[in-house]
Order: sequence, then structure tokens, then C-alpha cells
Amino acid sequence: MVPGAEKGERESGAGSMRVIEITRPGGPEVLRLAERPLPEPGRGELRVRVTVSGVNRADLLQRRGRYPAPPGVPPDVPGLEFSGEVDRVGEGCRLRSVGERVMGILGGGGYSESVLLPEREAIRVPEKLSLEEAGAIPEVFLTAWDALFLQAGLQAGETVLIHAVGSGVGTAALQLARAAGAITVGTSRTRAKVDRALSMGLDHGLTIDEGASWAEPVHDLLSGRGVDVILDLVGAAYLEDNQAVLSERARWVVVGVPGGGKGTLDLRRMMVKRASLRGTVLRARPPEEKATLAREFERVVIPLFASARLHPVVDRILPATKAAEAHRRMEANRSFGKLLLSWRESESHES
Amino acid sequence: MVPGAEKGERESGAGSMRVIEITRPGGPEVLRLAERPLPEPGRGELRVRVTVSGVNRADLLQRRGRYPAPPGVPPDVPGLEFSGEVDRVGEGCRLRSVGERVMGILGGGGYSESVLLPEREAIRVPEKLSLEEAGAIPEVFLTAWDALFLQAGLQAGETVLIHAVGSGVGTAALQLARAAGAITVGTSRTRAKVDRALSMGLDHGLTIDEGASWAEPVHDLLSGRGVDVILDLVGAAYLEDNQAVLSERARWVVVGVPGGGKGTLDLRRMMVKRASLRGTVLRARPPEEKATLAREFERVVIPLFASARLHPVVDRILPATKAAEAHRRMEANRSFGKLLLSWRESESHES
Repeated sequence: MVPGAEKGERESGAGSMRVIEITRPGGPEVLRLAERPLPEPGRGELRVRVTVSGVNRADLLQRRGRYPAPPGVPPDVPGLEFSGEVDRVGEGCRLRSVGERVMGILGGGGYSESVLLPEREAIRVPEKLSLEEAGAIPEVFLTAWDALFLQAGLQAGETVLIHAVGSGVGTAALQLARAAGAITVGTSRTRAKVDRALSMGLDHGLTIDEGASWAEPVHDLLSGRGVDVILDLVGAAYLEDNQAVLSERARWVVVGVPGGGKGTLDLRRMMVKRASLRGTVLRARPPEEKATLAREFERVVIPLFASARLHPVVDRILPATKAAEAHRRMEANRSFGKLLLSWRESESHES
Repeated sequence: MVPGAEKGERESGAGSMRVIEITRPGGPEVLRLAERPLPEPGRGELRVRVTVSGVNRADLLQRRGRYPAPPGVPPDVPGLEFSGEVDRVGEGCRLRSVGERVMGILGGGGYSESVLLPEREAIRVPEKLSLEEAGAIPEVFLTAWDALFLQAGLQAGETVLIHAVGSGVGTAALQLARAAGAITVGTSRTRAKVDRALSMGLDHGLTIDEGASWAEPVHDLLSGRGVDVILDLVGAAYLEDNQAVLSERARWVVVGVPGGGKGTLDLRRMMVKRASLRGTVLRARPPEEKATLAREFERVVIPLFASARLHPVVDRILPATKAAEAHRRMEANRSFGKLLLSWRESESHES
């Protein structure tokens, strides 16, 4: 339990809210429960009473002081996403009203009992989902959907390689790619994660030993066919093999680089394959782009949740006061799907 | 003069044509004039009596045995482009007729007095251009136009960095980018080439000393603004500086790698900038793509030649029998614009 939790487990006072703050750069132990003034929504903004805050790898980097928050968000409160209920609307809001269930991504400050965001960036939670389930959606499904479809233009019948298929983005990508008719290959360094992904409908799974080359097994799994789209959640460690499996006109989207940021690229091979490599990130996007993304996501992806073709994958829901434990679990690569922090009192589930 | 030239300078006999062939992998001296049977056009094909054959860097690589011709073209006759007159049409042709002036790209075999190609891949030569001038168009303008607009989506008001701005593709890209309202920065290792490019309308020119870093001068020339589109005709030698000048959402198109094929890419930087790198090549494309490209080029680029907003840039026209001399000139980086080989008797111009 993080320091300050005892006090924090009491309901926060009127005019104030609880947050998890980074007291100094360091390990999970630097996270602490604190109180902050409850913010007022500005023009076009919503204030949302948060049900759950999602945990992302970026939060771990930020906690270590290696991923500074962008301007305009609290520098010492991690958290890129939330689900909850609108509890106040700013002037000029037209789309949402008090009591509506919404979710969304944030530039930061998401480990918080209340958050503000522009109403056009909030995404409706479909009726059949609980707010806890919805909390497992925004960051990973937006990232995977944007990368696979808006950036890479993945089409039915194409092959897609999803690294870290047991991660939050990985499990989201797997479901989205399947829903859209693509042929999926997923990798993980943990056999149990590959097995779970296979049970979720992954077409071809591969457990990769640390340092081992995997290009040939992937070619074999695809009967010699190359990979049309790579969703790269690893980076440098897989750079060479990624190049070896590119099909003609392949699109390779780099979404995260926990396996290292720099490596050797063979430009001639990129030419011969007429392949593209594209880096992408949601956090740093300007508000108008985030709003466009949220509106389009609500239009075409939310219906797939409503019709149960997509499912949020929840690893665990821990009380927000146990943020440090959630960070430790993610750092140890033990989670499958999303780790969530709950602001409802004394709540804790395991999937 | 290449061996066999004496005989070759006589008009080739009926039923035969002259070609320049690669007798074995090696230097310019391995090129030789030879006779081959005159081919008959198949269904949907044209036979063109060639006026000039363009010389490209790929021809030099092929001559050295380092760029094998794709299947279906003569392996020992270099040449990727031509201009000339249709002298025979195959069955089922609807677009072209005998006597029409056309130009186009080929998978190989372009150093030849006659070539065959599908009629939908042939491009009309606008009236105001001579066939010699037209010979300087296909490969470099198609490559530059495809890379800048179809691949990179260059828009008016954007900044574009053109490496090797004095090369055939470089001078074509400069004109196309200017015609479309982009802000152009061009580099060369030769001051005289930068000066000529500036006189053609290049906005900002930079002479780069071998091994010197150029990212800071480019930023200065653009008053701190980054580069929206990079047309990379160099490769590994400029990889690091190219990464340093990327603007947000920059598109980097790799078209040639004479400066080396492999180098270190910073994936994290590609993410932060949300930048893309794309390799491209015309030669290996399937016929339907080449036809689509040719038809679209005729529709939107040829009118810019007809209205004199674009101009072919001819370095020299040498008799085809002097192919070795043309190769030596290109290898020494002495050319500015296109080197052409003429099949009209005893013809030789300098621009």
C-alpha cells in the first residue's frame, strides 16, 4: 500500500480529490497518495469522476523520470486514460451531460479521482460494458486501431505480425485484426501468453526465446508468405528479424521500444520491398487530432464492443492505493491484458 | 568508342537492331555494340524506334553485376528508359498508332535501337519538346513525382529536402516541388551544382563536405523549421542528419543509396516525430502499376511540360556507341541532369 493510503481510503473532502503522485524519480515505492484541489472544467470541457485509471508502460517510464509529461498536464501525476461518469460540464458543451458514462485518453494526470478533458475527446461507454471493463479500452484499443488501420491501412486477408501479443496493446490489436479479417501472427517471450492469445483466436503463435532469431519460424507459420503489417511493440531487439519478414509493400508501425530504441536499418531492403516504417505515439498529439480520433473511434470501433466482437481484456483491478503493486506487476511482465486502478473504495478483482 | 562501333555505325539491317550489351561484369570497358534480332510486339504492345536511351545509376550497378535485371528483360542490355517513335503496334492496341512520339520506362534493355513495351505504359511526348529532350524525362521525373507526391504527399507550403540536387532525379524533384509550391532545400557535394540548382529556382542550397554534418545548417536555412519531406538519394551516409531535421509527421522517401545501404535508425525519434521512412523503386513494379503510373503521369505531369513549368535537364547527348564514356562521366559525378545516348547517326550535343 502506498504511503498516505490510510488517509486516502477515507472519501476525499468536498473541493478536493485524491491522486497518485510521483514524489521523486525512482521505483514503484516513490508513488504516494495525495490530495489536490478538485479542478473546474473550462469551456468545452468535462469533469469526470473516475471509476478506474489504466496503467501503461509509459507511466513506468514517467515514474523513473524518463518520459516527462507534455506541457499542460501535471508533471507528477502519471496516467494516460480513465473511465468514469461526467460530474460537471463546462460552458459550451453540447455533446455530453452530467451522469453520462465516458472513457478517454489524457496527456497525463490520469491516476486521479477526477479528470478534465475536452468533451469531444471523451468516448461513450457502450451500455453492455461496466465502467471497469471500459477502463481497459481507451489507450490500448485507440493505439492498436490507429496503428493498424489509420497508419498501416491493414486489410482483410493481409498478414499482420503482433509482437508482445499478451500486452494490453497486443491483445487489443489481435482482436481488432481478427475482427477486420486479417491473418494474425503473435509473438511473446512467455509461452502462457501465447497460449492465451491462441485461445482468443490468434491464428499463429510463437514463443520467442531471448536473443533468438524468429524470422524463419514466422515464414514457416505463414507458409513462406511475408508479413504485410508489423505492429512493433518491441523495437531494436527485433529490428533485424522484422526486416527479414517484410512482404512487398509492407507497413511497419513502431508503437513502443522497450527492447531498445536504436538499431541497424537496411535501406536497400526497404527499397526492394517498397516497405515503410512509421513511428507513432498518441500522447503528444494536439487536441484537435485527439478529438478527431475519439470521434472516429466512437463511430466505428465502439459498435464492435456493443456487438461483442471486441472485448476489453482485464488483467487485474487493484485499488488505486495499490498503484505501486500494479507497477511492479507490469515491470515483471506478469500481466496479460490491462492493469487497472480503481477509485471505488476497497475494490479489488482478479480476472 | 565501344568495340564493334565501326560496324555499328552503319545502319543495322532489316530484321535486326543495334544494342549496347554488357559482355561481362566490370568497368565501362565491358560495354559493346552488338546486333540482335528486331523483336515483334505482342498483344497490347508497341515497338518503338528509339531516339535516345537515358543513362541511370542503376545501369552502372548492373554493368558491375550488382543489380541483376528482373525476369522478362534481357539480362545483358542495360537501360531503363527511352524516347522515340512508335514503328509497329501489336494486336489489340487502342491508345497509340504508328508514328506517335512516346517515352517510357522499362525493366531493362533500354540501350537498344528498338524496344517493346505495353502501350499503356508509354507516355505521350508533348508537341513542344524534341524527342531528345523527352528522353531526359521518364525515369527521373516519374521517380521524383511518384516519391514526392504519391509516396510522401508533398503539399504547397511544406519544406522538402532534396539530396543530390544536381542529379537527374534531383533536378526533376526540384522543379516538381517548386511547381507545386513547396519550399525547397537542396544539397550537393559540388558547389557548382548547388549554384546551378539555385539558378533553377532552388530556395536554399547547401554544399556538403564529405563526412561533414549538415543538419544544423539546414535548420538555419529554414529558420529553425524542420523538413516535412526528405527525398533521399544518398542513403546511409546521411542517415543520422536526416533524422535530425525531421519535422513532426515528416515523410522520408528513400530512392537510392549510393552513400551506403545500412545505418543506425533511432526508432524512438521516429515515434516522437511520428515520422515515416519508405523505400521505393520503380523498376521492380508489376506492369499494371507501371501502367497506372504512366497514365496518371500523362494526365497531371505532362501538361506542366507542355506549359513550360517543367523542363527536361540534359547534361549531354552522346552517340550510343559512346556508352562507356557516358558511364565514366556519371561515375565521376560530373554530370548535371541527364546523360543520354542517341541512336541517330553521328549525333552528339553538349548542353
